Parts: sequence; C-alpha cells; structure tokens
Amino acid sequence: MLDDRITRLGQALQAEGFDAVALIPGPTLTYLTALRFHLMERPMIGLFSAKGAAHLVLPDFERSKADECPLMLHLHTYGEQDQERLPALRAAIKALSLERGRIGVEPLGMRFYESQLLREAAPEGQFRDASAVLSSLRVRKEEVEIAAMRRAVRIAEKALLETLPLVKIGMTERELASELMVQLLRAGSQGELPFEPIVAAGPNSALPHAVPSERPLQAGDLLLIDWGARWE
Amino acid sequence: MLDDRITRLGQALQAEGFDAVALIPGPTLTYLTALRFHLMERPMIGLFSAKGAAHLVLPDFERSKADECPLMLHLHTYGEQDQERLPALRAAIKALSLERGRIGVEPLGMRFYESQLLREAAPEGQFRDASAVLSSLRVRKEEVEIAAMRRAVRIAEKALLETLPLVKIGMTERELASELMVQLLRAGSQGELPFEPIVAAGPNSALPHAVPSERPLQAGDLLLIDWGARWE
Repeated sequence: MLDDRITRLGQALQAEGFDAVALIPGPTLTYLTALRFHLMERPMIGLFSAKGAAHLVLPDFERSKADECPLMLHLHTYGEQDQERLPALRAAIKALSLERGRIGVEPLGMRFYESQLLREAAPEGQFRDASAVLSSLRVRKEEVEIAAMRRAVRIAEKALLETLPLVKIGMTERELASELMVQLLRAGSQGELPFEPIVAAGPNSALPHAVPSERPLQAGDLLLIDWGARWE
Repeated sequence: MLDDRITRLGQALQAEGFDAVALIPGPTLTYLTALRFHLMERPMIGLFSAKGAAHLVLPDFERSKADECPLMLHLHTYGEQDQERLPALRAAIKALSLERGRIGVEPLGMRFYESQLLREAAPEGQFRDASAVLSSLRVRKEEVEIAAMRRAVRIAEKALLETLPLVKIGMTERELASELMVQLLRAGSQGELPFEPIVAAGPNSALPHAVPSERPLQAGDLLLIDWGARWE
C-alpha cells in the first residue's frame, strides 16, 4: 500500500516538474510512511523524489521508531549538537542529487525553521508550493481509508447520541464540549481529536470557529455543535 | 496586563535591533492579544512593532472575535478572494513602515505560506529568528500565569489519582491513555490538552515520544505516563 503511494507520488511529481517533495511531521508524512511523529523543536524532514526514493532526516533517538516503517526508507540521523542537523540534511539532499532541484513543499504545513534549513542545504534549490500535487494524490481514497472514515463517523455519531440527553439549560458551552469529548473517547475515538469540538449557543452560534465559552445555555438558544472523531 | 506585555515586547525588540515581530496563531499571539485563533487555510498575521503598535491581518468573518481584544489593535481584513490577502498585509506593513524592516519571526511557529506572503508584502524586509526575544519576554511569569500553572498542575494530579485505580493488566496503552484523558476533562482541564498523554509500557517505555499502542499491559511492565492539563 505504501509502496503504491510512493510510486503514485513519484509519477505526480514528475508530471508537474518537481524533482522531490520535502515534508515535516503531519498527515501527509504519515500518509506516505505510516509513521506518527509530532512537530518538535528538533527538525524531522522527509524527502520523497520523483524517482520514488524516500529519505528521512531525524534525531538519533527517534531511529527505532522510524525503523518500524514498512517502507524502504533511508535514514539520516543527527545527535544532540545543533550543528549536526545541517550535515544530516545535506547528506539526504546529496543522496537524491537535489542540490539544484525543484523541491515541493506544503505551504500550510512546512515551518520557517525547516524551510531555512532546506535553503541552507540546497542554496540553489527552488522551493515551490506542491499542495496541488499532494492533494491530487490524497483526494482519491483507498478502500482502507474509506473504511477508517466510516468508522470515525460511526464513533462521532455514537458520541453525539450519548451526549444529547445530557444537554441541560444552565450548563456552560465548555461543560457540554467537555462531555462530548468524554463521549468521543468512550465511543472509541483515538485520543488526538481532529479538532476541539465547537459548542456555541445563542449569539455565539453566529461566530465561525467559536471557542466553547463559560456562557450557560439558555432556553430558546440555537445550539451549534461541530465535532469529529479520529480513527487512523 | 496586555498593554504591559506589548510595551515590554517593544523594548526587547528595540534592544535586539528588530523593527517588529510577525506572528501567526499560537501561544505567543494569544499571550500578546488574549485572542484564541487556530491555524487555518486563511492567513492571520499579527505585526507588533518596536514602537508598541499592534496590527492584525485577518479574514473579514473573524473580525467580531478580534473586536473583543482588550488591546488597541489595528485590524486589516480581507474577503473570500485569494487576491485580497496580499493587499491587506501590505496595508499593515505600510502602516508600520516595515517595507525595509528587520522583522522577527518564530521559526518553529511561522509557516512557509505566511512567510512567503510577508516576503511578497515586504520584498526588501529581512526576516530573522526572534525566538530569543520572545522567550526572554515569556519566561518571566506574571502572578496570573503562575496561578494558572498551579491550577493546571492540580487538575493533572487529580486526573492521575482518579486514573491509577483503573489500571489493570490486559488493558491496552491506548485504553489507559483514553481513560486518563477522560479524567483530565472531568477534573476540569480545558478541552485542548497541551499534548496527547504518553502511555507506554514494557519495551515501549524506552521510546521517547511514544504514541499509545494496542499493546496490553503485562505483569512486571514498567509503566510510563507523561501527561498534562490545560488551564488558560
């Protein structure tokens, strides 16, 4: 499954004139490697070439986790000294001959820190928005992804049905949001929710992206709930 | 309180030769404005000058939330057309005379997308790491922050004490992590936990940043729990 994704990514990169894509921890890196890493103060950069090679730059102490990746993944690790980071990234850039490459990034995911490191490691490289390539790849869902989405929806529905009988005049938006999160976890959602549920009543329900407040629910309020569960 | 933070930020920026700092949603922007925004696909950029002025570039539809900011905040909003974003940012850059400015960023917070927009809006600007300035500001905690940290610790302690009696041989790391999250919410933690609790037993307890797995707890396991609550 992962090999197939890497192959399709390579083809899509070639078609759009990219030599590679550079990713930091987030949904796309997990999609390609099945590895779950968080953004940290230490850089972790995946480089995936149009020819189908996969390289990962990461701290030494995370190596055992990366070793579990079912993919043929070339690892470039670095130690605790800051100055070890750039050489590790340079080694990956060199292994992929990307010194003058057209390297795609996800503008809404890539951070300033890693993009500066990349520019230092490949000063003649060009860094461009590759989100169209990556979303064209990810938008066509595989069977296993559709099954996971169905399961997440069932969990979310169950959590809402368990929460609705608990809604009472006088409870705050935050209390209701907290109860909904408890029910999401009880119903089997994985711990890192896709987003904190929005619970907004009365005038707050007109706010987009409202954050649950200390306002108590009142009779006649319109109650808006926007929520989701995580499964894989 | 916020005015005082903005004043101290201005002094620290001046001392380090910055004309301003550019921030996107995250803890530092919330620290300076008391506004809670999430990272979205639409840019939101706060510009804080060494002279103490505060400007915020944001989507039209988030204006009512920004209007609640107790700070004197100059708003530059844009509509739903992509091409409206750059002019709104240019207006903020111009209002602060930052066209050739030394602008600080948080390398671990700023995204590629907003940094490219900033470079377009101030092509002769210089963008540098300002994390030392910002952390020197935030490291000295005010009374109100210390009180919030104490409350978060009490919530975290209560949640652990409620969870420990529920630990049983045969339950999975993920089930235990889920139960701990439920107890954190019941004990009063705000919904967005500082991080997903780490629950790692046996060999997994040797992994830094382990993600709770489906491995059942076994007799003789060393059990590692790393968790926290959120309060303000």
